[in-house]
Order: sequence, then structure tokens, then C-alpha cells
Amino acid sequence: MKDLTQQDADALIARMGRDARDAASVLAEATAERKQAALNAAADAIHAAEAAILDANALDMAQARDKGLSPAMLDRLMLDPARVAAMADGLRSVAAQPDPVGQVLAEWDRPNGLHIQRVATPLGVIGVIYESRPNVTADAAALALKSGNAVILRGGSESLHSAEAIHAALVQGVTQAGLPAAAVQMVPTRAREAVGAMLRAQGLIDVIVPRGGKGLVGLVQSEARVPVFAHLEGICHVYADGDADLDKARRVVLNAKTRRTGICGAAECLLIDRDFLAKHGPVLVQDLLEAGVEVRAEGDLAQVAGTIPAQPDDFGQEFLDKIIAVRLVDGVEGAIAHIRRYGSNHTEAILTENDATANRFFRSLDSAILMRNASTQFADGGEFGMGAEIGIATGKMHARGPVGAEQLTSFKYLVTGDGTIRG
Amino acid sequence: MKDLTQQDADALIARMGRDARDAASVLAEATAERKQAALNAAADAIHAAEAAILDANALDMAQARDKGLSPAMLDRLMLDPARVAAMADGLRSVAAQPDPVGQVLAEWDRPNGLHIQRVATPLGVIGVIYESRPNVTADAAALALKSGNAVILRGGSESLHSAEAIHAALVQGVTQAGLPAAAVQMVPTRAREAVGAMLRAQGLIDVIVPRGGKGLVGLVQSEARVPVFAHLEGICHVYADGDADLDKARRVVLNAKTRRTGICGAAECLLIDRDFLAKHGPVLVQDLLEAGVEVRAEGDLAQVAGTIPAQPDDFGQEFLDKIIAVRLVDGVEGAIAHIRRYGSNHTEAILTENDATANRFFRSLDSAILMRNASTQFADGGEFGMGAEIGIATGKMHARGPVGAEQLTSFKYLVTGDGTIRG
Repeated sequence: MKDLTQQDADALIARMGRDARDAASVLAEATAERKQAALNAAADAIHAAEAAILDANALDMAQARDKGLSPAMLDRLMLDPARVAAMADGLRSVAAQPDPVGQVLAEWDRPNGLHIQRVATPLGVIGVIYESRPNVTADAAALALKSGNAVILRGGSESLHSAEAIHAALVQGVTQAGLPAAAVQMVPTRAREAVGAMLRAQGLIDVIVPRGGKGLVGLVQSEARVPVFAHLEGICHVYADGDADLDKARRVVLNAKTRRTGICGAAECLLIDRDFLAKHGPVLVQDLLEAGVEVRAEGDLAQVAGTIPAQPDDFGQEFLDKIIAVRLVDGVEGAIAHIRRYGSNHTEAILTENDATANRFFRSLDSAILMRNASTQFADGGEFGMGAEIGIATGKMHARGPVGAEQLTSFKYLVTGDGTIRG
Repeated sequence: MKDLTQQDADALIARMGRDARDAASVLAEATAERKQAALNAAADAIHAAEAAILDANALDMAQARDKGLSPAMLDRLMLDPARVAAMADGLRSVAAQPDPVGQVLAEWDRPNGLHIQRVATPLGVIGVIYESRPNVTADAAALALKSGNAVILRGGSESLHSAEAIHAALVQGVTQAGLPAAAVQMVPTRAREAVGAMLRAQGLIDVIVPRGGKGLVGLVQSEARVPVFAHLEGICHVYADGDADLDKARRVVLNAKTRRTGICGAAECLLIDRDFLAKHGPVLVQDLLEAGVEVRAEGDLAQVAGTIPAQPDDFGQEFLDKIIAVRLVDGVEGAIAHIRRYGSNHTEAILTENDATANRFFRSLDSAILMRNASTQFADGGEFGMGAEIGIATGKMHARGPVGAEQLTSFKYLVTGDGTIRG
């Protein structure tokens, strides 16, 4: 199936899209209990299929080694019993969350007696385009199903066998609970044409969620005619204000940069207020150096032993590595101006004990997530209490920040009168 | 300016878009009081400019008559002192509404002590593309401004002079309140290329709202690379269930069809349960005939004197006139099946005293607005208590149903810790 004409790919996605739509209309009316049963049955099926999933993954790993994939990519691809168990646990944890569908989001009465409710409904059909992590198969399907949506999954070629084995288990759970198999479909080809067909499937796919590197996300954002929930980059900033508490600042800066450097919520740039430097010296830079971080520093900070001089393009750069760019700024206004120019609207943190300064930062910036005295590494649906996330969005339409089950819903208005007519 | 190359149009919209973005960043931080002052000053300016606006409108009307526009179109275009006063009142009424920006939409605490708030923010820049109604200039600008957004208006060629006169008054109000003139811009040409440039202005315009006929909306929906809030058609259905109260049913059906026939919330199709017909006879059809409505009826109903036989394409048709298609169905299931096939996801009403039947209708259909024992003519932002509407959306992304100031906002997360780090 590698050589697929665009026409064949369009026909394939059109057929899958129609099946997904049919499944979606069943899912939209499925009770919370039935969706919960499907998710728990899928968790059981993943658990029962552990050996088959690991065998499939061994095939993918062997091919990946042959292709000479990097250790980081091999690690993303690799499954072991603990990772399979984590997938099953993830399904159970999403099952246990409150059901977003049917929630009354707002209600009010009108003077003429009309009662108006705004009630959450599923979006319809979610398309997920991802790269090598096989677990996205289960995570994305779980959130889509929870929110009453059908899902069309298109994984990377590296994880083909693993994803197919996981998908088979998911379908088993879904059908055991009496829901249609087409609720969770996987595109049966890794031909690139299928991605193109998904991106143009207006009317069949309601939203596309790309999960992967900048190359994939950029392609999806520029080509899609269907709405997209995504972030291109997580260029997260931490600003240490003159009124910061020194201990909190040291703790948060280290955690924001070093806890995990490869995630989108990792800090990529530290902005230090000149007042902070005057009070405390270059302690934050020294902490980072001691933790083995490459510090690309500017101006006075470049004098600190062990730093290397920052180049202009180190600012606005997503390193996803043990590297950080550091700049001195003049107070919160300087930090805001820098972030407006170099940020990616993902997550920024301010370290300060001054409420007015924190409010200025919160009011003037428009990143999806703004934090005060907390690590940018909390930019995550699980950490927000959403149970899980299908991704993080930096756009302003519909969903923003961590995208959980609730953000995969739309709404409708239910209006009740008593023979009420308009004058 | 009629002959504009696409390149010139792109450059024009790019320049206006950048000015709008700059204005939007000022508006995003403007206080509720300042925005309110701007709206009230704009209302005063409209009032003061009444003579200039009426003179400009007289020019447009003369040209429209020369072009032989229909009486309906001339009526849409026409302004008189009452309509000018209504525009000013509309601005004042939007000014008096609660400010949506900064509202805390949700907040919660995490076990680690993090406090999370979801707070409403402006969307950014709204593009409004409309046809002949000059009052859209003021209505759309008012809602955009209220929600902290800059707006780029592109009216129809018929209303050019009227819209420019209204726009001048709006700018006067906005600048009097100390807000940037670019908060409310009007595209200074009626060349079609400017519309194309707006539809492709990704990154400059955040959402486009088309206001007009099916031709305009269809073009915008198919060509836009920017998100769109719109409805293509309002094919609204009324279903008279066997358990309907006869008086309420008669009142609502007549109002839904005849109060105003040219609006998107007007009923275009009446579905009568066979049980209703058995109990009450063809009274709903007779009421409509007596009110002068052309009734295109099917099956047994076509026997009623005065009806004309329905053709297949009368179903799923938006007449926007004193015409209605009528069909007999088997209970609520029959009504749901018909609406799923022929509806446009705008507004549908059920007439029934049976709660279970009403719930079935509410649960199984996914129109933006579903009503029980109330007229479809209530599908309107003002009637919903939103103060005004910039349009009605039938899509599922972001906004749905009447689009008021609240729906022109996005949100961001504000997270507060106390030196909190992720383990």
C-alpha cells in the first residue's frame, strides 16, 4: 500500500470518514456508562494482548535499528511491559473521569419565560496524525471516545506494527461494549497521500490533532483545510523578577529547564531582571551550569565562568535539550516585550512576590498558559487535572492549552417554552 | 479603486491587518470602562452625524434604484431617522452589557497547591464581510469592540457611502475614548480582490464573519483559510408531535412561519405526526393557508383544499418567503430522520407535552438550536439575551448558534504556585 495514488488515498479517507460519521452519530447518543465500559474493556484487551503488542513492537524496533534511528527515537518507539501497563492504566483513568457530553455549560431564563440551556455535545470526528510514539494510539482514542467522538488515527511508519496491535485491542474493547468498530479506525497505509487526504477531508473530519515534531505540525498547519489543534513550538520563558523569592526562583528555574528537556513545556529562555541580578548575583545561571546545562548568556551574564556567549538566534529557539538562552531585562516590561517578540504563545512563568507585577505579566501576555511561581513543566493536561491530553494548542479557536476530553466537545442550545411566540 | 490587482489587494489587507493587530493589543488591555465609553461616544457620534449618514444613504439609494435593485434589497439598504437611532441604541445597549474579557470561566485547585484559572481573552482581529445592510457596520463593530477585538469591515458596493459615513462616526467615538482608530477599519474599496485577500489573511485576521446571502456565505466558506463563523442556510423545521397541545402548536407554527419570512430563523418545513393529524385534522395547514402562506403538501395533506403538491426538492429548501413544505411523519423518530437528512443544523422546534419525546428530539438532533414549544423565530442573539449578535453559526468549532460578544473571546490559563515544581 506504500504506492497509493492521491485519488486512491482520497477515496480511502472518504470511506473511512463516512464510516466514522456513522459511528459518531451512535457515539453521540451512547450513555456515559457504555463509553466507560468500552474504555475499561479496551484496557483489559490491551492487558490481555501484551505479548502480541510486544511482538509487534519488536518488529518495529528491529526495522528502526536497521534504518539507523537515533537512540532518542528508538526510546520513543520502544514498548515494554511497564509501558503497555501504563497505556491500559491511561484508558482506565480516562474511563473514570466525568463524562463531558450532556453537561449543562450555562442556563438562564428570559423575561418571556423561555428557558435556555447550553449543553456540551461531541465534536464529531477527530483525526490524529502522529509519529513514532505507539502509545498515542491508545491515549488519543481514549479521549476521543470519552467525549463521544469517532477517531481516525494515522501513525508513523516506524510504529506501524505496534500501532496496529494496539488498535486491534482497542476495537475489541469498543465492540465488546456494543459500540461500532468504526469508532476507532486506523489508516491502513503509511503512504503520505493519506495525510494529505485527511487534511482536506472537510465535512468528514471535524478537527485534526497532529502529534510530533515541528516538521509534521508545520505541514499540517499550513496544508490543512480542516481545523487544527496544535502547537508548532514550545518556546517557554521564565522571568525572574527583582521581587522574586530567591529560593523559589532557584527551585523553579532548575525544574523548568532540567526535569525533562525534550517536552514542549521545558523552559528554553531565562529572563533575569537587572534588579534580581543586583540583589542576588548570577546564582540562577550558576545553578544551571552546575546542573550541566549549556547556558548561552548575553551582556554581563556572559562574564559568568562556564557560560558561552549567546547568538541572536538563540532567542526564540526551541532547544529541546540541556541548553538555555539567558538575557538581562529591565523589569517586567522588558520581559513582556521580549516574550511578545520571541515567544510561541505556549507557556511562560514569572517569579515574583509582587502581586501588581504578576498581574501585569498575566494581563499583558497572551500565551495559552501563564504561570506565577510555578514550573513551566506543569504545562500538561494530566497536571491540570484533565486526566490526559490529546495535545497542547496555542491557537485561539475553540481549544487552547492542554486539550482534554472537555475541549473535544462543542455545544448546542436547548430552548424550552410553553407555546412561546416572538412578538 | 475598482480595478485592483490581487497583489495590491493583498498588500492593502496586510497593511490593514498589521494595523488591526497593533490596535488589538491595545484593546486587549483596555478597561471595561474605556470600551464602554468608546461605544457610548460612538452612539453619540452616530446621532450627531444623522444628517451626513442620511445624505450618504440617499446617494446609495439613488444608485441602487438606477441599477434596478429589488424592493426587498432597497429596503435592506434604506436608512431613515428611526434606523439611525436604532443603530445608536444598539451601540448603547452593547455598551451596557457585562464585559466578557477577563471573566473567570473556570477555576480549580490541584493537590500540589497550584491554583488554575481559565480567563476569557479577546480573539484578536475579526473580519466582517457583508452585503447591503449598512447597520451591520455599527452592530459588528460594537460587538468586536466590546470583546476587545479589532475589526476589519468590508461592506457591499451598494452601501458604500452609507457604511463610510457610519464608519467615520464610529472612529470618532473610538478615538474620543482614547482607543486607536485602527480598532475599527473599513476596507476602502469594493474590489472583489479585497475579499479574497481577507479570506487568506492567516495570522492577521483570526476569524471571518460573513453576513449576507447564500452566495456570499458559500464563497467565504469554501475559499477561506481563516476560520469562519457562519451559517449557509437556515432550513428550520417545526415538528408537531401527537402529544402536542393544539393551541400552542397552532400559535407556534403560525409565528415560526409568518412573523418574518426573510430571516434565517423562519420555519421552512412543517413535519406533522400522523397521530397529530388523526387527533386534530389538518388544522395547522389550514391556519397557514388562511394566513396567506403557500403550502406545498405531500400525501394525505395534499388533499387539503388550497395546498399545492410538494415536489421532492421542496424539502431541504430555504424559501425565505411565504412558502412552506409540509410532510407527514411517523412520530418523533420520523421527524428526526427527516431533519437529519434535510436540515442545515440551524434551528428546529418540537411541539409536544411529552417530556420523553422532547428529550429524544433534543438528544438525537445536533442543530445549533433546538426548541420545545417555542417559535424558531427566537433564533437570535438579542432574544437569547446576548444584547446583539454578529451572526448565527452552524459550525461546531468555537462559536455556535447566535454569536455575541462572549463568543468573540478565547481564553488563557493563569496558574499560580508558591515555588511549585513538578516531580
